Amino acid sequence: MGPNEKSILALAGGVGGAKLVLGLSKILSPHQLTVIVNTGDDEEFHGLHISPDLDTVMYTLAGLSNPETGWGMAEESFHSLAMLSTYGAPTWFSLGDKDLATHIRRTELMNSGLSLSEVTQNLCGRLGIQHVVAPMSDDFVRTTIDTNKGPLAFQEYFVHLRCEPKVESIKFHGAESAQPSPMFTDALRSATALVYCPSNPFLSIDPILAVGDVRNRIKSFEGIRIAVSPIIAGHALRGPAAKLLAEMGQEVSAQGIASHYKGLCDILVMDNSDAALTQTIQSLGIKPYTTNTIMKSDEDKVALAKYICNLMRI
Amino acid sequence: MGPNEKSILALAGGVGGAKLVLGLSKILSPHQLTVIVNTGDDEEFHGLHISPDLDTVMYTLAGLSNPETGWGMAEESFHSLAMLSTYGAPTWFSLGDKDLATHIRRTELMNSGLSLSEVTQNLCGRLGIQHVVAPMSDDFVRTTIDTNKGPLAFQEYFVHLRCEPKVESIKFHGAESAQPSPMFTDALRSATALVYCPSNPFLSIDPILAVGDVRNRIKSFEGIRIAVSPIIAGHALRGPAAKLLAEMGQEVSAQGIASHYKGLCDILVMDNSDAALTQTIQSLGIKPYTTNTIMKSDEDKVALAKYICNLMRI
Repeated sequence: MGPNEKSILALAGGVGGAKLVLGLSKILSPHQLTVIVNTGDDEEFHGLHISPDLDTVMYTLAGLSNPETGWGMAEESFHSLAMLSTYGAPTWFSLGDKDLATHIRRTELMNSGLSLSEVTQNLCGRLGIQHVVAPMSDDFVRTTIDTNKGPLAFQEYFVHLRCEPKVESIKFHGAESAQPSPMFTDALRSATALVYCPSNPFLSIDPILAVGDVRNRIKSFEGIRIAVSPIIAGHALRGPAAKLLAEMGQEVSAQGIASHYKGLCDILVMDNSDAALTQTIQSLGIKPYTTNTIMKSDEDKVALAKYICNLMRI
Repeated sequence: MGPNEKSILALAGGVGGAKLVLGLSKILSPHQLTVIVNTGDDEEFHGLHISPDLDTVMYTLAGLSNPETGWGMAEESFHSLAMLSTYGAPTWFSLGDKDLATHIRRTELMNSGLSLSEVTQNLCGRLGIQHVVAPMSDDFVRTTIDTNKGPLAFQEYFVHLRCEPKVESIKFHGAESAQPSPMFTDALRSATALVYCPSNPFLSIDPILAVGDVRNRIKSFEGIRIAVSPIIAGHALRGPAAKLLAEMGQEVSAQGIASHYKGLCDILVMDNSDAALTQTIQSLGIKPYTTNTIMKSDEDKVALAKYICNLMRI
């Protein structure tokens, strides 16, 4: 990247984040975009290191993702998982045969001594991904959810129990002493703009902010910081963001999202249907903008990405 | 097993051995048969512990084996392997999606601290296998082949190079200091008969004999010891046994097999087509018997197993 080139640091979790990342990747050169992905929901299944959010972003950028679910690969089979079940292994976490190869390869490379960043770079390179995709940290960070059913590992809460338990608080074990990954550190230093993708702020973005001194670095980040609300007309398009806002005692609306990012964000992009919230958002010291934020087609993703880049003057 | 009950200790390698083991399992109760399997050709691929001969025996007894190849599972797909190839992993060792589950589960259980014997018992139990199947040792033993192309790891020689290099010598690294597995030790003590299945004597049986003091224990084994020749009319039904006999300077016939097992075997069962060798075998101090040893159908396998049990008076 040249000294005057503008570039974006995008923070992303799973499916919603990956959609905007795809849009950004289609209009920005590899040197203009660094995607930093939540790894608080990483988990070990069958002795394999699984990074669900990294995989979602990776499969999406590689054109391999399942268009119906947003996660996992398209045209998957589940023969290996069925056999693992025969062997008595817990198989509530869905793992397709092709997807398993990712976890097998990642685990092998990590066990050979590579960091998660290095492994991610390797896998992305093999899948022909040009843009930088990196974990938030190479250190161990695990999101656990304190609920009315007791403390739960993230995937236990999210996948096994389908987000049904009532959340009391969310912890990011290891985050405080974790270091941001090298790509993250570089981008925090050199990026001219920061985007919070429309991922779940509690489960996907907060773990990223919890790493080391990331929250403080973003507070003093000199470029423009834009959040895209994952809540549209009081509902999350997918996932438990709306339920969590209510359980955490916040407004179930783009206003709740703005409150959450107060001090960390300059602009909130919300859906046209939330235009009535404009003044409320302004009163929080955040500039509201409205556009279509529902990303169904690739055209929607590119349109939203262009809208954001315009706001950032990129 | 009651103190007067007769029982067989069967030593087996891959496909040929598994066929006879299947026949024996159909006529003997679980307490009458212990199958000890070569693990000298175990290998690590993709960070997973693979035990090809144990798997072949296990899949065969569970009715899961591929009837066309004899190894691997029936009705396999290879989606995971194709993806591993995309990731740049070496994929010349064929691993089906269902088969991979075996290696994933085995590796996970071994990494949790279980021995290979314990893991094998666990996997066999899950597959409904009643008879005892155990590795020759829980210790690390690896067969390597010195060839005209240099020293080769077993699977490199056997699978990758299709046994094409000329063999100069065969080594079983770690065998001398390895201990026989607990099931093997028990059976060496308590079995009333021993069978060398028609597996490759150099590659499948010799590694078993090389473990610790196994060869000496079998020399002084008090029960009857029967070998089944894998060479029929000067040819191996499959695999490189005939080629190896020639390269090791032995007769490419049941006579070569008898010479190989001299001092370790009381009876050689050979195919009807080798009846002309009867006197030669006798001159080696081994009693020759002839029957049909070509096991195409399950009936063939049971018939040969019955023939052997008759010779053993079981």
